[in-house]
Amino acid sequence: MLLCDIGNTSYHFLDGEKDYKKDVKSFDASCMKETIYYISVNSEVNATLKTLPNWINLSAFIDKEQYYETMGIDRVVAVEALSNSVIVDAGSAITVDIVREGLFEGGFIYPGVDAMQKTYLNISPALHYSFNFDLDLDIMPKNSQDAISYGFLKTLYSEVMSHKLSVVLTGGNANELHKIFKDAIIDERLIFNGMKKIIKKAKLC
Amino acid sequence: MLLCDIGNTSYHFLDGEKDYKKDVKSFDASCMKETIYYISVNSEVNATLKTLPNWINLSAFIDKEQYYETMGIDRVVAVEALSNSVIVDAGSAITVDIVREGLFEGGFIYPGVDAMQKTYLNISPALHYSFNFDLDLDIMPKNSQDAISYGFLKTLYSEVMSHKLSVVLTGGNANELHKIFKDAIIDERLIFNGMKKIIKKAKLC
Repeated sequence: MLLCDIGNTSYHFLDGEKDYKKDVKSFDASCMKETIYYISVNSEVNATLKTLPNWINLSAFIDKEQYYETMGIDRVVAVEALSNSVIVDAGSAITVDIVREGLFEGGFIYPGVDAMQKTYLNISPALHYSFNFDLDLDIMPKNSQDAISYGFLKTLYSEVMSHKLSVVLTGGNANELHKIFKDAIIDERLIFNGMKKIIKKAKLC
Repeated sequence: MLLCDIGNTSYHFLDGEKDYKKDVKSFDASCMKETIYYISVNSEVNATLKTLPNWINLSAFIDKEQYYETMGIDRVVAVEALSNSVIVDAGSAITVDIVREGLFEGGFIYPGVDAMQKTYLNISPALHYSFNFDLDLDIMPKNSQDAISYGFLKTLYSEVMSHKLSVVLTGGNANELHKIFKDAIIDERLIFNGMKKIIKKAKLC
């Protein structure tokens, strides 16, 4: 079974246990002849894949009633993968979604690591520091680097932990955030697991 | 007694009960002949005022031991004004400082309203919404505008409230944040009150 999670920059394939990426700009989807189950947040790619019958868009097989229209399909599929969790997907944005007893409660969007770094720099060159992910969240900062690190990380941490659910980290900055969310589980294949669950539920193969 | 709080864009005067602002670019500080007690985060202005003997920099009269070197003097003076509070100064950055039993515990820096609005827009045009300050913080969002509003505001709220102290709001966006921090006190003259306290303590007049 070949799965593909398509973002703004790459096709991310999972073929059995092996995963690999192809650049959105250079990859020719029509060269693939086998059946591929995919999700995509990329509207341009979506338009192309609609014309290729061996590319099956899993979005059509999800009961969308509990979600909202502008919610990214990657978030929806991550929620479908789990039953009782706070899902923290740390990419260009950090999306935080709550699923409790199998029901989606809602979610929020926080800026990603790189975006927030730029934000502080744009406010003032005096705030141009890398984030300190080894920060002790129990101590109020008394230096500038920790003051912005705490501002970015502790606020997110306090809110996420207030839901009293296990935390699942995914996305490109999951490892960095793991230093803050020490008890969290990292699941780099969360989206693929959600896709498999949808395929099974819809009896697609 | 004439007080002046100098920022990056303006001189903010308090003359008795009347306050007014002068533009940093066009105002000639040497035209003032009376004694003026001031603080300034503007290093250029600081250099000029050093040469004018009637401008008294209050920074010299503060015991700085409990603060840190790169901490803005406006934050220090706000902390000096209070004994048991979380001080939320909402400007281009939102600084949050904790003072408990008269002692400064530390503080953090969070992006201001305008900075955060730009951050979301830069992540994706799909996140280009104004913040909804009438958001119900007890409900997890199920639409994009609330998802970014919650991301910006609830995370800050959760962290600020965790300190279990009364919240004092000041700065240009204090009124907007008051919609979220409903029980907070707005004190637009916090800096001036801190300055008066320092003058009194140092027996300057």
